[in-house]
Amino acid sequence: MKRLPSLEKLNTSYLFFEIEKRKRRFLCDHPNVDIVDLGIGDTIFPLPSSIAKAMEKGAFDLSQEEGYSGYGQAQGMVRLRQILATNIYHEKITPDEIFISDGAKCDIGRLQILFNNARSVGLQDPTYPVYLDGSMIQGIPKVYHLPCIPDNGFLPHLPPKLDLLYICNPNNPTGMVYNHEQLQRLIDYAKKNHTIILVDSTYSSYIQDSALPRSIYEIQGAHEVAIEINSFSKMVGFSGVRLGWTVLPKELTFECGRPVWPDWHRLYCTIFNGASNIAQKGGIAVFTCEKWRENICYYMKNASYLKQAFQKSGYAVYGGENAPYLWVSIPNHRSWDVFQYFLEKKRVIITPGVGYGSSGEHFIRVSSFNRFQKVQDAADRIDSSLVQGKNFISKAIEV
Amino acid sequence: MKRLPSLEKLNTSYLFFEIEKRKRRFLCDHPNVDIVDLGIGDTIFPLPSSIAKAMEKGAFDLSQEEGYSGYGQAQGMVRLRQILATNIYHEKITPDEIFISDGAKCDIGRLQILFNNARSVGLQDPTYPVYLDGSMIQGIPKVYHLPCIPDNGFLPHLPPKLDLLYICNPNNPTGMVYNHEQLQRLIDYAKKNHTIILVDSTYSSYIQDSALPRSIYEIQGAHEVAIEINSFSKMVGFSGVRLGWTVLPKELTFECGRPVWPDWHRLYCTIFNGASNIAQKGGIAVFTCEKWRENICYYMKNASYLKQAFQKSGYAVYGGENAPYLWVSIPNHRSWDVFQYFLEKKRVIITPGVGYGSSGEHFIRVSSFNRFQKVQDAADRIDSSLVQGKNFISKAIEV
Repeated sequence: MKRLPSLEKLNTSYLFFEIEKRKRRFLCDHPNVDIVDLGIGDTIFPLPSSIAKAMEKGAFDLSQEEGYSGYGQAQGMVRLRQILATNIYHEKITPDEIFISDGAKCDIGRLQILFNNARSVGLQDPTYPVYLDGSMIQGIPKVYHLPCIPDNGFLPHLPPKLDLLYICNPNNPTGMVYNHEQLQRLIDYAKKNHTIILVDSTYSSYIQDSALPRSIYEIQGAHEVAIEINSFSKMVGFSGVRLGWTVLPKELTFECGRPVWPDWHRLYCTIFNGASNIAQKGGIAVFTCEKWRENICYYMKNASYLKQAFQKSGYAVYGGENAPYLWVSIPNHRSWDVFQYFLEKKRVIITPGVGYGSSGEHFIRVSSFNRFQKVQDAADRIDSSLVQGKNFISKAIEV
Repeated sequence: MKRLPSLEKLNTSYLFFEIEKRKRRFLCDHPNVDIVDLGIGDTIFPLPSSIAKAMEKGAFDLSQEEGYSGYGQAQGMVRLRQILATNIYHEKITPDEIFISDGAKCDIGRLQILFNNARSVGLQDPTYPVYLDGSMIQGIPKVYHLPCIPDNGFLPHLPPKLDLLYICNPNNPTGMVYNHEQLQRLIDYAKKNHTIILVDSTYSSYIQDSALPRSIYEIQGAHEVAIEINSFSKMVGFSGVRLGWTVLPKELTFECGRPVWPDWHRLYCTIFNGASNIAQKGGIAVFTCEKWRENICYYMKNASYLKQAFQKSGYAVYGGENAPYLWVSIPNHRSWDVFQYFLEKKRVIITPGVGYGSSGEHFIRVSSFNRFQKVQDAADRIDSSLVQGKNFISKAIEV
């Protein structure tokens, strides 16, 4: 058995491993230092008790004669799919078009199998690294990195004839969200070019502006070209519980006009066996609970506070209004240097933008997933030294 | 985007969908008929309460400040991996070599990505259909179906230079288990041919004969050539909870001598985000519980009872001694005809052997996952008509 050639080209270290390594090394040299972690992309609040209770009951029921169940439908519990169809898609999507998963990342991996014969793939640059890594593992011959920068309003210029286009919306890391018109442009492109758009909507519940679409299916024609991936992770804090979903509309077709749905269903049942039934019981309880919406407000208050702090010090800041991430422009400095600067001089962890693509160089991602007090601490430490372009790093740091 | 060519070659219907369809059609025409389902490959008993309680506590803890956790390690909780290393592998495997999954099927899918450049794959015939389906989806150019039949003691003759060899042991559907010497032969072959063996040990907890190995790592040299996949599904009834594991030893190498482990770890972290933390808490509780072992004894008592009943009527029966399945030889009849016969004439559902490969034709799989009383009912209905080769089907049934 030979090694998969595409694996040779992958970075050995995943972005967050590298951050963790550097953090640990620093704490080893400086124990007892109080670090504020704004690098983290994970929720911090306990689950609302009504949701936890639903899962406790789910686990208990499995120990009862009348409550036990083994394999469920690979596609997920009908009740949960109905709830999502109603609450998220307002019946613009049918339960049959929803596939319950163990999280967005895992479904992206499965979709990459379904589309592993794509000749070309377009990725926003910067974006969540898994789209690129997975495409490389699948050996996609041509990957376009499409710069999404302030100059183009973070809407990429698209090359002709992409087979597949990944759109992370709200975007991780930039926190930017497309409006109706921008999404319509992507859909029009996809229709013209027989492109399938994979929309990762993991952060859609953070959209505050009611004028912005929360799902691509609010836009005309999306059902014919777009697959939407979503998750309970950032929404209610299920990142450890593992629950998400993917929408694959029945109108979606391959170039030849054949629907994609039967292939996806077949593949889904072949290499997946459904999300945990206990987790699904938790998912069913989500929409009769309001507490998690408060948590989202809390994080967005953090985001707003941090945004003001950076702006006050003279930084250009993007995002942070409809997503839990700020995207802070730091020209003149390499983003890993900025990471090191924030770690060593400010005791704050941020995420270097270049970890999300080369267009992320000279930016950092700042997360609002932390306690407000910590966020205040970090905000207090922000000053304008980087804006003034001081040569703060004594020696180059090798990445 | 073009359709994946390999998907065109897949059967549209998965074996158990077809069985379900036929069962439903029959029940539609014959309501109120009491059918005994011996087709099912799923456990039926509620979870032992100590295991359910551990998961209830896991869910409850997530609602508490001090108990909440988000993303865990993609590879799984260290505690669970330690427990498996000790209890299943008696320290012959380190926790680092164990990857906690959401079930065997899902890990098979991920391994098929890692090895999607295999030039040739060998499959036992008959075997669990997912190995073939997944290999076809990945477009493996050459798939060998290796007959495992009474004549060769169910040990396949191996063609030279297989890149990958799937071994389901105990085998689903035949219920046959390899002994030390047979496994040693496979390992010797793999070493000579640079083959990687994927051992699916999902049913290993059903092995009763203490002389038989319960893991391939009991055999010399296995660490260099074998990956073992296992699951809590059949062991403790976690088929809906979703928890399994894969062992990938650090000594395992590609043809070039490079270890496979780093690639697998990289791929695992890229397209998977860990099994549900609640399910993992259940897994940790498994080895301080004895109740599930009683359930296995119960199923094996069923198997023994069914085996005697079939033998008494003159059938040649394999398996059923170290696995929950019997493999009943029914020469002269097509196995879908036999399925229909058992459904219509005996009100018993079995699984047609041909659903597991062409060498499964003229066999049926009989499952012991049912209540003893149901098993007795079914056993009472078994007679020798099929052995006598009576032409019981009035018209051919199209599959």
